[in-house]
Amino acid sequence: MTDTLNTISEELIASIRTIPDYPKEGILFRDITTLLSDPRAFRRAVDALVQPWAGSKIEQVAGIEARGFILGGAVAHQLSAGFLPVRKKGKLPFKTIEQEYELEYGTDTIEIHCDAVKPGEKVILVDDLIATGGTAEAAVKLLRSAGADIVAACFIVDLPELQGRAKLEALDVPVRTLVEFPGH
Amino acid sequence: MTDTLNTISEELIASIRTIPDYPKEGILFRDITTLLSDPRAFRRAVDALVQPWAGSKIEQVAGIEARGFILGGAVAHQLSAGFLPVRKKGKLPFKTIEQEYELEYGTDTIEIHCDAVKPGEKVILVDDLIATGGTAEAAVKLLRSAGADIVAACFIVDLPELQGRAKLEALDVPVRTLVEFPGH
Repeated sequence: MTDTLNTISEELIASIRTIPDYPKEGILFRDITTLLSDPRAFRRAVDALVQPWAGSKIEQVAGIEARGFILGGAVAHQLSAGFLPVRKKGKLPFKTIEQEYELEYGTDTIEIHCDAVKPGEKVILVDDLIATGGTAEAAVKLLRSAGADIVAACFIVDLPELQGRAKLEALDVPVRTLVEFPGH
Repeated sequence: MTDTLNTISEELIASIRTIPDYPKEGILFRDITTLLSDPRAFRRAVDALVQPWAGSKIEQVAGIEARGFILGGAVAHQLSAGFLPVRKKGKLPFKTIEQEYELEYGTDTIEIHCDAVKPGEKVILVDDLIATGGTAEAAVKLLRSAGADIVAACFIVDLPELQGRAKLEALDVPVRTLVEFPGH
């Protein structure tokens, strides 16, 4: 790979659409559907995201519902790994284990199948964007409780002001992101 | 590719878990999470699914929320295409167009972004399973209304008794599936 991460970041930033006042007033929503629909940007994002682990043996890529499924499916294919869905409560058909986490108001719960991870399996967690990191932190705890060895957590977009990265690094999870945006 | 589709089908069938009485009594639910978690089965499913279009120029892979996102992300990566999410109503951040379709009781609505397709773009529609084909039929109509040239609709699993394939073929959409299961 001759391109630097900076060159790739600029290209990816140009392919992401910003939608003001979504989902509520004052929020700048970073819409990655415009990145995904661009074949070159999508491929470069996937390649750059997992480049540090290109030669490693990664057994599973865990994707967080729903946008993390798109990116996670592509990353799993790129790494010749399996894919492991981290879903909202009540969506998985087999026996599950769950992890609750706090939202701004109230709580939410994510689930994985009870047999989704074999003890010691090397897992990379993937989502499109890290904001406060609450869901990703819950996913790390849930996957580890099932025996996963979390190699890294990868996100295309980081919103550094919301400090999600620190939340995962406090759990000794290496975090990789490709682009940063100011604000929420 | 030296393996026949029959050999691949047998391998994929062995990797799919059947859950009796889910989501309700009398239904045999075909759970593909066990296929996705198996690196070899996942890769072979993706490769076999799009093998007829491996040399063609496909611009977009449209995946149906939520399991179609996993497979669609991998297929888009395999074909070096973009990915286009077909989502449940109210989930996309930008201006959308929608298509209503009938369920057993009542109706449901899917959406795409209004600028998700350029007129004439070659699109492959992807989901994990085709049952009655209602959602896939709605997706075809919606994508065509945006100008898409639907090259094919691809599913890992077909439940032929529910006749979804015929619904898409009536719209002149070539349908590719890899494995069949009897019953619902």
